Amino acid sequence: MTSIPSPAPRKHPLQNRSAESQRKMIEATLRLLDERDIELISVRDICREGGTSNGTFYHRFGTKERFFAFLVEDMLARREETAMRDLRDSELSMTDLAKVLARSAIRNFREHSGLLRSAMRRHIIGDPCWTPINHMAARIVEHFIERTTRVCGRKLDSHDQQAIHFAFTWLYGLLSYRTLRLNRLEQFYPPDDRFEEETIRTFTVIIESALPHDAIAGKP
Amino acid sequence: MTSIPSPAPRKHPLQNRSAESQRKMIEATLRLLDERDIELISVRDICREGGTSNGTFYHRFGTKERFFAFLVEDMLARREETAMRDLRDSELSMTDLAKVLARSAIRNFREHSGLLRSAMRRHIIGDPCWTPINHMAARIVEHFIERTTRVCGRKLDSHDQQAIHFAFTWLYGLLSYRTLRLNRLEQFYPPDDRFEEETIRTFTVIIESALPHDAIAGKP
Repeated sequence: MTSIPSPAPRKHPLQNRSAESQRKMIEATLRLLDERDIELISVRDICREGGTSNGTFYHRFGTKERFFAFLVEDMLARREETAMRDLRDSELSMTDLAKVLARSAIRNFREHSGLLRSAMRRHIIGDPCWTPINHMAARIVEHFIERTTRVCGRKLDSHDQQAIHFAFTWLYGLLSYRTLRLNRLEQFYPPDDRFEEETIRTFTVIIESALPHDAIAGKP
Repeated sequence: MTSIPSPAPRKHPLQNRSAESQRKMIEATLRLLDERDIELISVRDICREGGTSNGTFYHRFGTKERFFAFLVEDMLARREETAMRDLRDSELSMTDLAKVLARSAIRNFREHSGLLRSAMRRHIIGDPCWTPINHMAARIVEHFIERTTRVCGRKLDSHDQQAIHFAFTWLYGLLSYRTLRLNRLEQFYPPDDRFEEETIRTFTVIIESALPHDAIAGKP
């Protein structure tokens, strides 16, 4: 359905050295992306920053484009794994689950802010690199709705489902706005710890106003 | 403080024909911007779409850059005038005032979505065109805080002020996310009327959770 270049197949780390050099390249590139857009980063920059050779990079990833797609895929795989584990945690109330999901979304945006900024900029000019991010968000919210259904013991009507989707849209909107640095005036751009605290507080209010009353307190 | 090119001085419309041709160029450009980025629109496109001559355009605006800055300034002038009028309306409770401000923000983003999208894209690559938009948002929120102060009859502490700024940050984040079409999956991208309704409903919840209790019901 999409024309995103397939990421390079992940190789089994037969040697620690190989896994280690891949990890170094990923971390180096995330650092560089915090400073500038992917268009302004060369394979040579990545290898210099990561302390690996150009040959290792090309052998493993082929092109910078494939490496960029790999970085997005790698971020999503880890984010989805964490979210799905939280979604299965039957000790959490719906409100606590929402807080946990919001906190990991905030951290994911913070830890990958440069990568996400480059991906958003590409999306804006028509590149499909943002599509898998939206599909993952959709899967997380679908599971959140399924769990709400179990807590309530009845199927949610479309109005209730839309309200839950919309609550997450507010969260993704806020995180994207911050990631794109659309407003860095001091009063609109609190430091990270204050931002996280205020986001969790308000998201709790938003999600509780979206959830059916009988879902708020209950556990499945 | 900023290096934005100054907009061309607005000329007094000595002739109706002159005001009319300016209005046509503005409307034509807003229509074209809905379809594509400012970089992909030429002065010739604007004049053809607006039914005016290239000579009229250059006489009035000088360059496409100055015209783009003029479009932003023209949008802001109208938006701020409306917001300041609402902020002075002493019949409105703080909650109703928040709803009115949110509704006009939603409509402003909708009516200027192409213009705002081009401005955001330029902001992302370091252009200062978005700066006056943030300054206007800051003035509106400052006035909202001043009015809250009058309603409460005491100065708000910095925590209360931050909470109000943060409530508006959620709103601007949501509107920017939609304007950039960062997620057009059906469940995250409701039609305009449903989007407006849900945004107002949730923003009311957000602002009431940010306002001091004694400000919610009161009127100045």
